[in-house]
Amino acid sequence: MSVRVEELIAAMTLPEKIAQLYGVWVGASDSGGDVAPHQHDLDDTVDLDALLPAGLGQLTRPFGTRPIDAAVGALSLARTQQRIRAASRHGIPALAHEECLAGFAAWGATAYPVPLSWGATFDPELIEQMGRRIGDDMRSVGVHQGLAPVLDVVRDARWGRVEETIGEDPHLVATVATAYVRGVESAGVVATLKHFVGYSASRGGRNLAPVSIGRRELNDVLLPPFELAVRESGVRSVMNSYTDLDGVPTAADRSLLTELLRETWGFEGTVVADYFSVAFLKLLHGVAESWTDAAAQALAAGIDVELPTVKTFGVPLMRGVESGVIDVALIDRALRRVLVQKEQLGLLDPDWSAVPPALAGASLDDPEALRGSIDLDPPANRALASRIAEEAIVLVRNEGMLPLRAPSTIAVIGPNADDPYAMLGCYSFPTHVVSQHPGVALGIEIPTLLDAVRTEFPSAVVEWERGTSVDGGELGGIVDAVALAARADVVVLALGDRAGLFGRGTSGEGCDAETLELPGAQQQLVDAVLEVGVPTAVVLLAGRPYALGSAVARSGAIVQVFFAGEEGAAAVAGVLSGRVNPSGRLPVSIPAGSGSQPTTYLAAPLGRRTDVSNVDPTAAFPFGHGLSYTAFEWSPLAASTTSLATEGAVTVSLEVTCSGPRAGADIVQLYLHDPVAEVARPVQKLIGYARVALEPGESATVEFDVPADLFAYTGRTLERIVDAGEIVLSAGRSSADLVSGVTLQLSGPTRVVDHTRALVPGVVVL
Amino acid sequence: MSVRVEELIAAMTLPEKIAQLYGVWVGASDSGGDVAPHQHDLDDTVDLDALLPAGLGQLTRPFGTRPIDAAVGALSLARTQQRIRAASRHGIPALAHEECLAGFAAWGATAYPVPLSWGATFDPELIEQMGRRIGDDMRSVGVHQGLAPVLDVVRDARWGRVEETIGEDPHLVATVATAYVRGVESAGVVATLKHFVGYSASRGGRNLAPVSIGRRELNDVLLPPFELAVRESGVRSVMNSYTDLDGVPTAADRSLLTELLRETWGFEGTVVADYFSVAFLKLLHGVAESWTDAAAQALAAGIDVELPTVKTFGVPLMRGVESGVIDVALIDRALRRVLVQKEQLGLLDPDWSAVPPALAGASLDDPEALRGSIDLDPPANRALASRIAEEAIVLVRNEGMLPLRAPSTIAVIGPNADDPYAMLGCYSFPTHVVSQHPGVALGIEIPTLLDAVRTEFPSAVVEWERGTSVDGGELGGIVDAVALAARADVVVLALGDRAGLFGRGTSGEGCDAETLELPGAQQQLVDAVLEVGVPTAVVLLAGRPYALGSAVARSGAIVQVFFAGEEGAAAVAGVLSGRVNPSGRLPVSIPAGSGSQPTTYLAAPLGRRTDVSNVDPTAAFPFGHGLSYTAFEWSPLAASTTSLATEGAVTVSLEVTCSGPRAGADIVQLYLHDPVAEVARPVQKLIGYARVALEPGESATVEFDVPADLFAYTGRTLERIVDAGEIVLSAGRSSADLVSGVTLQLSGPTRVVDHTRALVPGVVVL
Repeated sequence: MSVRVEELIAAMTLPEKIAQLYGVWVGASDSGGDVAPHQHDLDDTVDLDALLPAGLGQLTRPFGTRPIDAAVGALSLARTQQRIRAASRHGIPALAHEECLAGFAAWGATAYPVPLSWGATFDPELIEQMGRRIGDDMRSVGVHQGLAPVLDVVRDARWGRVEETIGEDPHLVATVATAYVRGVESAGVVATLKHFVGYSASRGGRNLAPVSIGRRELNDVLLPPFELAVRESGVRSVMNSYTDLDGVPTAADRSLLTELLRETWGFEGTVVADYFSVAFLKLLHGVAESWTDAAAQALAAGIDVELPTVKTFGVPLMRGVESGVIDVALIDRALRRVLVQKEQLGLLDPDWSAVPPALAGASLDDPEALRGSIDLDPPANRALASRIAEEAIVLVRNEGMLPLRAPSTIAVIGPNADDPYAMLGCYSFPTHVVSQHPGVALGIEIPTLLDAVRTEFPSAVVEWERGTSVDGGELGGIVDAVALAARADVVVLALGDRAGLFGRGTSGEGCDAETLELPGAQQQLVDAVLEVGVPTAVVLLAGRPYALGSAVARSGAIVQVFFAGEEGAAAVAGVLSGRVNPSGRLPVSIPAGSGSQPTTYLAAPLGRRTDVSNVDPTAAFPFGHGLSYTAFEWSPLAASTTSLATEGAVTVSLEVTCSGPRAGADIVQLYLHDPVAEVARPVQKLIGYARVALEPGESATVEFDVPADLFAYTGRTLERIVDAGEIVLSAGRSSADLVSGVTLQLSGPTRVVDHTRALVPGVVVL
Repeated sequence: MSVRVEELIAAMTLPEKIAQLYGVWVGASDSGGDVAPHQHDLDDTVDLDALLPAGLGQLTRPFGTRPIDAAVGALSLARTQQRIRAASRHGIPALAHEECLAGFAAWGATAYPVPLSWGATFDPELIEQMGRRIGDDMRSVGVHQGLAPVLDVVRDARWGRVEETIGEDPHLVATVATAYVRGVESAGVVATLKHFVGYSASRGGRNLAPVSIGRRELNDVLLPPFELAVRESGVRSVMNSYTDLDGVPTAADRSLLTELLRETWGFEGTVVADYFSVAFLKLLHGVAESWTDAAAQALAAGIDVELPTVKTFGVPLMRGVESGVIDVALIDRALRRVLVQKEQLGLLDPDWSAVPPALAGASLDDPEALRGSIDLDPPANRALASRIAEEAIVLVRNEGMLPLRAPSTIAVIGPNADDPYAMLGCYSFPTHVVSQHPGVALGIEIPTLLDAVRTEFPSAVVEWERGTSVDGGELGGIVDAVALAARADVVVLALGDRAGLFGRGTSGEGCDAETLELPGAQQQLVDAVLEVGVPTAVVLLAGRPYALGSAVARSGAIVQVFFAGEEGAAAVAGVLSGRVNPSGRLPVSIPAGSGSQPTTYLAAPLGRRTDVSNVDPTAAFPFGHGLSYTAFEWSPLAASTTSLATEGAVTVSLEVTCSGPRAGADIVQLYLHDPVAEVARPVQKLIGYARVALEPGESATVEFDVPADLFAYTGRTLERIVDAGEIVLSAGRSSADLVSGVTLQLSGPTRVVDHTRALVPGVVVL
């Protein structure tokens, strides 16, 4: 217990208490377009002068709302903080939060690859480094909290926010997200797990649509990433999901936000509302009859802070307390969490300064003198962005075409070939904000794929044709594209998505797909170009996997890139030339059919191909798949024992040898199969993985220390259990390419696994 | 308690007891193709001579397996019964069951419209008459149990078995299915509710795929039809669903098969296994480690009889009892239910005769003399089939084109124009069986649409072109179709499905769709024909709704027919000519987009069109929609009160007047809207309806007596509650065309509604 916090709570009036429980989005109305759902309905103009005497809990998106020079923004934020402190009796600064989905959402800040690319790296350590850099940059300009990472597990690839996720496997999502959080938190910035929970399972992949789900699927698929991150990452904030689960909106669900998160998992930070989601209890879900009712339900469930601005946690909440329908103890509960966090952040220190580290020593009186003085995209950031992009690129198919052998003429074709936005997801600052401000510069250098191919192949003639747009469906340009292809040695066909918000793109928040056919006329472009017969590498620069039609069997190569960030183009060009040896693996399956959703690899037997349906959901390229320019040999998987107790453990290991002509990195994947269980379980389930970088001829041993806890699942009685019987562990190159396995015999009583033990294996590469 | 049954149980050996708990499918191996999932894996040859000394519980599909003359089949069945009685110590006949999804599944029996057409009639009384006729026909030849109706509520229109359902609304399904059961049971035949429960919500609409669902959706959408039928219809059997719900296969789910069905709802009949589903616990679900384990789980959960043949309930079950893992009390529990039912059916009577009513007095020694002596498709049956077809046809769109005004040349185009199978669903005997026996006659007269148009328009020149096949995708014939269209006065374009089993069609069991685009090249055919500019009536002869592309806005008319049975063609022709005034309403929405699934009209606000997704699931033509050749005026909906207690009731009424030039029938639909509830609820939900047939100028008053129980839903605590607040009841011409409404104010404490009160309104047409 903090004496300072308790003294403050005792000294505060009700309006002062409530003022700590909401944010204000001062700049949103200048943005030129919505950056949050229903923003236009709900972003009432707030009278800051009227509010400030009571104090203020949070400042919403001081950098991510408009294109603003970093130093000028930092100065503006510092001045706002001074104003907040000066206006109120207790002088408590606001906590400033910002988006950081794929980098700090600020003009001029590094645009890293999107989370789906993080998943493709299978390299949590690298993602932790990125988290640290993002956190450092945010902290340097006065931001305290970042609204990332997204821990939603992909359940339907039509959902527009697939690009924001880490993939379709809970273990991959859990481990990569936890690493990201560690990085951000190590910089002293509060990370935020979102969206707790169920958002990705919305019906038909439509954004915010209701979720049909039972407790077992929730427990075994959607919750594990949150559990691991809460227990292992030191995360200090969680954001609710917009959706309802089986009718109950998570913003009003005490069983999730309090019983599970805090009482079971021991989370002690703040729960912040996804933007406007408290108001949505009345407006969209129909479970609250007034703003007061909405506030009361959210607060009681466990939401501590209303974001992005005050709608229900202001006057309506106050009225609720005054009229006796809301217990002030609930206000104090949320307030205590907020103040404890502010104390941790130093915001309650007597000597706290509004001037952020990056402006230390600078004069705050002359914004123009400061302009340009903060570089949020330094070379070290760019180098890291480049390395992540390189590790994230997945070589999906290669019929001997790649790497390209000194082509004299390269036809670069496609709507994503010469567009810097083709490298960015919807939460990257240029896409999120700059695109809505015509005439404003991107703020960072983002070479296009065409630029990068020209740089990568200086002696080749590189020509290009768009062919068609991303989603316009124009067919007129295809003839020129075909003509160009016909006179080239090789074709690089750059397809995919244009990210955007709320219908402004083909991927991103509010940009859901009806089917997994390529948008617009891109499939017709593929068909026409492949018909030419010139070796063609299809490069997908996309936010979700697509059914690729003729490209699956007829292309020379397929390179899957999930928005790879500002350095993505060079990384792709490096893969084309062979400078980069690809090592990414698919974090989501690439479907064979465009109408196959919802489907993921994580399916019980009847969720896979069966004799009783003519529709085969088998992926064209499965989760975990990816090729290399070198070769790796694996020894058979060995186990320290083949019989263990239900509370026991086993070590499984194999030796990986780089048997090919060049260095490269392999990803060893460990899958679980449980032949007989109390309930239908996924046929294969990833429980561990290791990235192994080797020189030619070099070997390494990969060891997984696997406690039987990792075999746990939610049984008939809804407890998490490990039961006796057979378990098969397999080493796989993908979820569908299991190289070797060991069968274990578990014995002993069925054991209930509580929530205090590790749910990840120990992984050692020797 | 029955003394006879208890005496028998006491006298029986364990093998004799177990023998009553399974069926044997004697004739299945002659069928030429599977008629059940995994039949080829599991239909081991059974040695009947070895089994019979212990007795036999059921005979599986004595008529529905091969094309066989009804009298010969009845004779064969009688002789088998005599053999069964003679071979065993207790002389108990087997209970013979047969499919009757859309009529008795026997060669030569009436092929009625499929259940989706029953739903379209909104006329339970008519469906009850059909049930009675089907029951009478089955009973006449010695069949005791029919495996219908299907009470699955459509959740994803891609599912192949949509044609077997009654629609996407629980109230419509419940009332129509209950009427069907009453008809069958009134004939002394056991009806079977299936598939209990959740089958229709399988992931991606793929047959047997896992079901993601929570308890509220289960309670409020999927269970109500079963509850009503159990309580109101006198049904005596229930069949489990193949699927798992959130991991738990229903065949092993005691909470559903025993606690809910029997202990809560009071069901006292038998629970029979869907074909092979006990074995599937091991084979497909991975929840049983052996056949004994599968049998033990199913028996303990509440499955009494294994169908279609003995796999796990024979030796494996016996071994389980002998080894002590299965309590013989569970055997006796199931046995008692089976014997009580046999006693009810007269099968335990000392003077029971194996000779069925239709063979009474005939000599059983000469099959050839009997051949042809039983007519299972008499004129009264055909008249009823015709009336149902006429009431089921939905005029979806009519731009003044219909009824046709004495055209001199009619072009009949399309793959379903001249094919009798276009009238039949996958469980109609010709499709189910005859189609697999080349050279065998259909057994019943089934005019094609082309035949019927020629009959209906004797003075017109009627020409036809196929254009393309149902699902072959051929484009070659389209040019001839276009040429024919160009020289006609009007075009009738007959499209849709070909029903079949397990991939042998585009609709039916195991024939799921990836998207809701018309199969094959049918959309190209539509586009090409509409381009001609001649008035075109698009007639869908289909098993599911399809996205109709250009036809939605450019056709002269759209007539939606869900496989309308042997008299369907004449009914459609009658609608085209105006002899029949259409009165059907859509039991499933016709989607606007082919990739919109899963979607139904029964959606909470976020399940509908929103500002936060670019994908709009709004239907092209909504649930409940349908046009007429006459007009109806409705008075505003009036309520007996606008304030009531949570245990109260209200009467709402309106007057319908036929204001058009001719007689017709209107369907008044009553919808519920609950603005604020504990959980997100569907925006509109059908709670009552009435079919009103009127002469020109005639009026009728429709009264709905609505207990507040009908406002109940499953709240936060999973109880079924009625709570205080506003309720809006609206009279609608469809779920999206609400003509007038009343707002009610409910007061009083939240009331938990148990399972003993009516969940249907009283409906009176005065």
